[in-house]
Amino acid sequence: MKTQIPLYPHPRIDRMAVYTEVSDTELNAFAGCYDFGEILACKGIAEGIENSNFQLITETGNYILTLYEKRVEPDDLPYFLNLLGHLSAKGIPCPVPLKRRDGKSLGTLCGRPAAVVTFLAGMWPRRILVEHCAEVGAGMAQLHLAGQDFPMRRANRLTIDAWEGVLASCRGRGDEVRAGLTEELARELAYLQAHWPKELPGGVIHGDLFPDNVFFRHGRLSGIIDFYFACNDFFAYDVGICLNAWCFEADNSFNITKARRMLSAYRRHRDFSERELAALPLMARGAAMRFLLTRLYDWLNTPQDAFVTPKNPLEYLAKLRFHQEVSHPSDYGLE
Amino acid sequence: MKTQIPLYPHPRIDRMAVYTEVSDTELNAFAGCYDFGEILACKGIAEGIENSNFQLITETGNYILTLYEKRVEPDDLPYFLNLLGHLSAKGIPCPVPLKRRDGKSLGTLCGRPAAVVTFLAGMWPRRILVEHCAEVGAGMAQLHLAGQDFPMRRANRLTIDAWEGVLASCRGRGDEVRAGLTEELARELAYLQAHWPKELPGGVIHGDLFPDNVFFRHGRLSGIIDFYFACNDFFAYDVGICLNAWCFEADNSFNITKARRMLSAYRRHRDFSERELAALPLMARGAAMRFLLTRLYDWLNTPQDAFVTPKNPLEYLAKLRFHQEVSHPSDYGLE
Repeated sequence: MKTQIPLYPHPRIDRMAVYTEVSDTELNAFAGCYDFGEILACKGIAEGIENSNFQLITETGNYILTLYEKRVEPDDLPYFLNLLGHLSAKGIPCPVPLKRRDGKSLGTLCGRPAAVVTFLAGMWPRRILVEHCAEVGAGMAQLHLAGQDFPMRRANRLTIDAWEGVLASCRGRGDEVRAGLTEELARELAYLQAHWPKELPGGVIHGDLFPDNVFFRHGRLSGIIDFYFACNDFFAYDVGICLNAWCFEADNSFNITKARRMLSAYRRHRDFSERELAALPLMARGAAMRFLLTRLYDWLNTPQDAFVTPKNPLEYLAKLRFHQEVSHPSDYGLE
Repeated sequence: MKTQIPLYPHPRIDRMAVYTEVSDTELNAFAGCYDFGEILACKGIAEGIENSNFQLITETGNYILTLYEKRVEPDDLPYFLNLLGHLSAKGIPCPVPLKRRDGKSLGTLCGRPAAVVTFLAGMWPRRILVEHCAEVGAGMAQLHLAGQDFPMRRANRLTIDAWEGVLASCRGRGDEVRAGLTEELARELAYLQAHWPKELPGGVIHGDLFPDNVFFRHGRLSGIIDFYFACNDFFAYDVGICLNAWCFEADNSFNITKARRMLSAYRRHRDFSERELAALPLMARGAAMRFLLTRLYDWLNTPQDAFVTPKNPLEYLAKLRFHQEVSHPSDYGLE
């Protein structure tokens, strides 16, 4: 473990809440810094994990108000907000931060950093179809290309350097979830550390491109949200995350048709290099490891109750084991 | 205890969730029964206790989608939905159920009764000002008048007949909250049962007119929501609820100015009879008892965790004790 990692685990909680209550008085004072007109309603959104999000309805339209809670590092916010502006200008359908009258896009509300972003129409798909995977593959490639000249940089805090620390913070309690899990994870980590590439084509990645962060209208991708894991890393690692997030069925079986459509749609916008292709199984394995570890941490550290349900880490153990058996990119449907 | 009461306690939970996840597929099928156009977004609202509420944004505007969860009796829904239509037609700013293409206002979504109602602009006040109390007094009187020719009836399931049952279901555990509480509540219940009037002017009451159910714009009442405790009962009991809900400060001290403004605004629309005036202290006392009992039940039966916070029942013990000391309506600021 190189550094003391700031642990930003990702619970994927089914039922969520708003962390901060915003009073009408505070909100109206905050709104006075913007030109979006009178606030007609501001309702906390039950989705979302890291931050408090509100559907803001004003005289001029719909927006999303986000209060950044303690899991987001305030120093990272300029990266996230500038990235949204950059990607949007390049045609990526992502939220755009509104500028305040003072020209800034970040303010303070209830003692927290806060921003207002544009509203994106669409809904995220609960049942993933092959067509969704193709759209996501294309959208991810366009995002990777659009970010190439983004001038800021942010290290990935949840990539391989961090995993040893996350595993250590589980204190050998993995076997509470499944006998032998701690040992299996230690072995996998050693393998990944020995084989992780030093260099691959990279740039800005989304880092969390799960179905609940992608909106669709009439089957077409209409929005990508939640860039709070965005960072600079290998493009193929983002692809590995999406293989895990979009291409397995509910029984954890791999759907090669979904993967083929995702990867081929990606390649039509940005083709993989030979080295990327060869690294794809390892990237998918690493991505499975990352979500397995953070889910395990959350599983062990979230109080058991009716309203907050940490996602089952073992879903990602099944996915990890699938990728361990992959010997060739063709197992992902690539020709 | 006369009947086996269906217990619908009212936790007043600070942080809430959505009970039911609605898939895009199910939602679009449901939306096909309405004429509100394409759904652009449907986000679960973090406020709300009894049901799952969604901010619905469509091509034609904003709406609220409600899925009725198990705490609402399906047989009561026609009363609630027809009442909203009735009151709205009389000018009360309440949500109006949208009619489906088949003429009905109630449908089914995710196996639950579901309705779409109009959106009301405004925000509920976190800090109650005297002006809010005057607006609520006037709005409540107008609501009472507007409901007078509503033809349906619904008994109040949480009035005096039910309290013995709620107290019994707390099984003497009141003393876990405060020494002597169970005995104090039993004594108060006996007093209320001995003195509760058989007859007072009545009709449709809201039954839950707390600040989070009343919206304001520019200081004026712009919306009344959450009619799921509405029923037929004494008007003065509704007034008693509002005295408790609006006229005490955070330290549980009674603000007679707020009460005076609320009651005098009420009287400008609907004056109290002599018997109502005389009964007001008893009604306020009963209303305090009702919320004290249901909060006590929830306090004893809600798991203690970070996200769900039942409201402190002792807030209502303090209010109850205030009303016990009231000897004359003038103690509420009435001339």
